[in-house]
Amino acid sequence: MRLSRYFLPVLKEAPADAQIVSHQLMLRAGMIKQNGAGIYSWLPLGMRVLHKIEKIVREEQERAGAVELLMPTIQPAELWKESGRYDAYGKEMLRILDRHEREMLYGPTNEEMITDIFRTYVRSYKQLPINLYHIQWKFRDEVRPRFGVMRGREFLMKDAYSFDNTVEAAKQSYYRMFCAYLNTFSRIGLKAVPMRADTGPIGGDLSHEFIVLADTGESAVFCDSALVDMPAPGKDLNFWQDLLPEVEKRTKLYAATEEMHDAARFESEVPAERRLSARGIEVGHIFYFGTKYSAPMKAEVTGQDGKNAPVEMGSYGIGVSRLVGAIIEASHDDKGVIWPAAVAPFEVAVVSLRSDDADVTKVCESAYEQLLNAGVDVLYDDTGERPGAKFSTMELIGVPELIVVGPKGVKAGVVEFRNREAGSSEEMTLEAAIKRCLASKGA
Amino acid sequence: MRLSRYFLPVLKEAPADAQIVSHQLMLRAGMIKQNGAGIYSWLPLGMRVLHKIEKIVREEQERAGAVELLMPTIQPAELWKESGRYDAYGKEMLRILDRHEREMLYGPTNEEMITDIFRTYVRSYKQLPINLYHIQWKFRDEVRPRFGVMRGREFLMKDAYSFDNTVEAAKQSYYRMFCAYLNTFSRIGLKAVPMRADTGPIGGDLSHEFIVLADTGESAVFCDSALVDMPAPGKDLNFWQDLLPEVEKRTKLYAATEEMHDAARFESEVPAERRLSARGIEVGHIFYFGTKYSAPMKAEVTGQDGKNAPVEMGSYGIGVSRLVGAIIEASHDDKGVIWPAAVAPFEVAVVSLRSDDADVTKVCESAYEQLLNAGVDVLYDDTGERPGAKFSTMELIGVPELIVVGPKGVKAGVVEFRNREAGSSEEMTLEAAIKRCLASKGA
Repeated sequence: MRLSRYFLPVLKEAPADAQIVSHQLMLRAGMIKQNGAGIYSWLPLGMRVLHKIEKIVREEQERAGAVELLMPTIQPAELWKESGRYDAYGKEMLRILDRHEREMLYGPTNEEMITDIFRTYVRSYKQLPINLYHIQWKFRDEVRPRFGVMRGREFLMKDAYSFDNTVEAAKQSYYRMFCAYLNTFSRIGLKAVPMRADTGPIGGDLSHEFIVLADTGESAVFCDSALVDMPAPGKDLNFWQDLLPEVEKRTKLYAATEEMHDAARFESEVPAERRLSARGIEVGHIFYFGTKYSAPMKAEVTGQDGKNAPVEMGSYGIGVSRLVGAIIEASHDDKGVIWPAAVAPFEVAVVSLRSDDADVTKVCESAYEQLLNAGVDVLYDDTGERPGAKFSTMELIGVPELIVVGPKGVKAGVVEFRNREAGSSEEMTLEAAIKRCLASKGA
Repeated sequence: MRLSRYFLPVLKEAPADAQIVSHQLMLRAGMIKQNGAGIYSWLPLGMRVLHKIEKIVREEQERAGAVELLMPTIQPAELWKESGRYDAYGKEMLRILDRHEREMLYGPTNEEMITDIFRTYVRSYKQLPINLYHIQWKFRDEVRPRFGVMRGREFLMKDAYSFDNTVEAAKQSYYRMFCAYLNTFSRIGLKAVPMRADTGPIGGDLSHEFIVLADTGESAVFCDSALVDMPAPGKDLNFWQDLLPEVEKRTKLYAATEEMHDAARFESEVPAERRLSARGIEVGHIFYFGTKYSAPMKAEVTGQDGKNAPVEMGSYGIGVSRLVGAIIEASHDDKGVIWPAAVAPFEVAVVSLRSDDADVTKVCESAYEQLLNAGVDVLYDDTGERPGAKFSTMELIGVPELIVVGPKGVKAGVVEFRNREAGSSEEMTLEAAIKRCLASKGA
């Protein structure tokens, strides 16, 4: 992308009401614009990060056997009356009357609707297991939206729903999502720790939150540091074997959010040198809730014994738009964002120090062309802006690697290669710099 | 994708209230499920088509210089009061009160919001041209939603908005989208004819609709058949030259919807053998409307002369979810859908005639593996269903090519290769069949 044809409105100062660093940096880097309380537009730079996260989430859901569909944002109230949640949900549910005065709502979650889809088509245990997911905008009418996309009202969520014939099978579905979540967050470049959780308004009796550790996190967490250091199962995991051992390896280690914390157990179970007290941000939440929705909504399947029984269900959420904020909370410095490579909006930038110098432009164009052809997401700063301002912008928006081209270097046959995270700078030939960029991409 | 792990709920009969063929086939092929009046879930098969169309639309927008962002579905009413459309829009606008009694609405279109984004960040002609687009769900509270996704209430739309300093520049932005639309529809596999249109509630004085010809189309259209036969500009078009000649080549030929039709002009301008009376479906609509929104909303830029003036705007829509219906209307037979290759939910299916035969399964698994590794979207029917039912389903959902594997063929070292559109069937080795699939993919 040529910066001269892009739309990247960076700001010198964040508005005073942006209290946390991710909110400040997202506004300053031109990633989002507020359109109303807790409602944001995703400007082109933010949109790129959102797309990259979505892609990873999708790939890891598919790997674990979940199948994508898409439910609408607007739901009829009837379904929620069947489950009993229409009255229970309270003011966070955005309720709507259409022109014919029919009661509708903007979906805050989709248990009822997916249960309705399931009962329409599925009759037999032979069609199970099924896990259906979608990535869709939701709305929760928070009384006091704040912290930018971390607690917005309109937000993007991946929610999956599993359907099984038996409790044992339903638990395996739960474990598949548990492992898929570890792989997802790891690929994004995050350390996400599973912690036993309260089930809250979704209900059920088995539930874990996935918490990203960040100094600026919203809540205190306590865990065995061995859990943080344990690698994710990885893409070679066979999702169709018994996954309980994979899950137990982690759940047997102490990990708890403030609400679930038991200081005595923490001290007795965890050796002192591994007792980690930190702050965290919830980015995923999974639930096994059995027949909580299938029983009242009569989503039944015929079992091997010929008898009908409500299907066993679970649901699995990842806050996709919230993740953007969480990543920034976990990875930034005083100059701006430090993106993990997998979700950086651009992988490399080519920075021209003199856009009016024909020799410099020739080298830049060649670098830009070569990187584009190699499938690298490259931003080419071809504008006439001052070098200092250009570097500040690149640091603010967090481009991991820069190829800087100036008249002196061009005469000497070299460019400058900068790495954002390491803060390093080296001179080398353009060929060597491009090789370095391709090597990082391959890694 | 293994069919045994997929969710493909095909139906024998379409519900009686599905009046048009695309609605009937989408319900029968398990592409959509109705959740309320004019509100649908996109089941996995439908979702795949939607994703493929989105991808083509996105690539062609980018090629023409448009930059992607994402505006929210819920908008504050204030913006629409600024433009004067809050009262003017009528009952089709879904109006919402939040918990604090603030007036909001579900966006039916985004001229106001994008104008607000623009005026927040852009001050100078030097930052122009800008064209920003998003692909987002919209809601129009139709009094009588019908025809499935062709006239739903919640629908997916690509809308782009251009900003220029002068009328001449704005027209070039308009021409770029005009050409991008021709390329988009052509890549999808559609014949879409641009026709001069009424500007309706968007306003403005230059507008074209893009109409797909289909016998079952919603309205009568009249045009010079030379226009239908003219190829799209193609991907090598330089979008940064004067595009008026590309546009005029087409607009000088007669083309009109019923409302704009002039029978006398049609007969005098078009030779008898090229006079085409047909039926069509609107899939795109583009508008140049100058300062209709920028003037009341004070979206001004400083020009070369140092003076401020409202920016010149246009907007450009493609009905992404509607396109799925339009493609089916234009391309089906009595057995089901005939997808253009570029948007087929699966490109190839491997059909096992005997899933309980180890030799057959071995060949199927090998075919499936090879196609997956070659990046082909392949569906593998590994179920125990009867062959007749399997073929009916494949024809209904419109998989373009089948590799059919049965015990007799396996003994003779051959598989059956079927082409949906040609209705052809040939025996050949598995290697030859895979080569044929890869050749179609390359085309």
